[in-house]
Amino acid sequence: MNLYHFTLSTSKENLFNITSMVNDALSASGIKNGIVTIFCPHTTAGITINENADPSVVRDFLLGMKEAFPDRAEFRHIEGNSHAHLKASCVGASETVIAENGKLLLGTWQGIYFCEFDGPRTRSFYVKIMGE
Amino acid sequence: MNLYHFTLSTSKENLFNITSMVNDALSASGIKNGIVTIFCPHTTAGITINENADPSVVRDFLLGMKEAFPDRAEFRHIEGNSHAHLKASCVGASETVIAENGKLLLGTWQGIYFCEFDGPRTRSFYVKIMGE
Amino acid sequence: MNLYHFTLSTSKENLFNITSMVNDALSASGIKNGIVTIFCPHTTAGITINENADPSVVRDFLLGMKEAFPDRAEFRHIEGNSHAHLKASCVGASETVIAENGKLLLGTWQGIYFCEFDGPRTRSFYVKIMGE
Repeated sequence: MNLYHFTLSTSKENLFNITSMVNDALSASGIKNGIVTIFCPHTTAGITINENADPSVVRDFLLGMKEAFPDRAEFRHIEGNSHAHLKASCVGASETVIAENGKLLLGTWQGIYFCEFDGPRTRSFYVKIMGE
Repeated sequence: MNLYHFTLSTSKENLFNITSMVNDALSASGIKNGIVTIFCPHTTAGITINENADPSVVRDFLLGMKEAFPDRAEFRHIEGNSHAHLKASCVGASETVIAENGKLLLGTWQGIYFCEFDGPRTRSFYVKIMGE
Repeated sequence: MNLYHFTLSTSKENLFNITSMVNDALSASGIKNGIVTIFCPHTTAGITINENADPSVVRDFLLGMKEAFPDRAEFRHIEGNSHAHLKASCVGASETVIAENGKLLLGTWQGIYFCEFDGPRTRSFYVKIMGE
């Protein structure tokens, strides 16, 4: 089925570079060409692709997201994490990456990130590979 | 072709849980394993995945999106709905979900939502299922 | 492999309608039915789907994104373009479109856009077509 499941333990709010795990899944599948879907089954977390070099990008990203989607006194969701739900929908629950000759077709500076907006928690994500 | 088309009538600005419709499409296709693409052909609406339990999440989501992407006096688009176009690009026109053993591989709290940002209108969306 | 690579030269910050290039790729593949993934390999640019008619929508979109994700004095990323990284994650690195009878299944007003948030630069994007 070429479906892989990974778990990770998160801190309060952070981005986790999962590129090597996605690469491992692609290698394990033996598929050379196709598309790879990375899916997050949580509603206060998501998947995004962004810079893998300067850690300041992740820090600034979390700061900018907090400013765009702050916690608000008017929010009514009893768990108090509506801002995390907003961030999750903004980055999205999944990313799709192209596989070429057995490798992820990413740009030089791109990494695949699991975005935790409401940790710390035990989280998981799926990697599904569709060959052509 | 495993392509399904659904219509819905929307209210002014709201999220509509379409998970059961996507499930129906998956069942009708007979495909057990693969990926499911839910696509919105409109430019002031979109598809997102978020919590299916507490209705306050949807309410807070719409409020938070309005604060992040408010209507602005400087906008020039003559239809006056540029804020809805922004929201549509933020959540995105589609979502991709994994199918496993004939079921959508969603998290316990996840629902698939059609996001209306500029209703009321008659809207539609497509579900495409790719088997492996 | 049904994988196509396009390059474009961008201005400072703008949206480029790439629908016809994606259509060309679909035609070249000869695939009639399936899904089309458009992927951006950069971290300060992205792909979105939005209105193709009134140019004011693009103008208002860039304005609204700048207000939601402004440059901030607190940002530390030395390249000074953290706001562009935020916008890239908000619109996302890819879009998935359905192919039906050899054509992109887009709504009447939808166009596929390459979003430059930190130009001018020479950029590229990939189109991958998966037939069923």
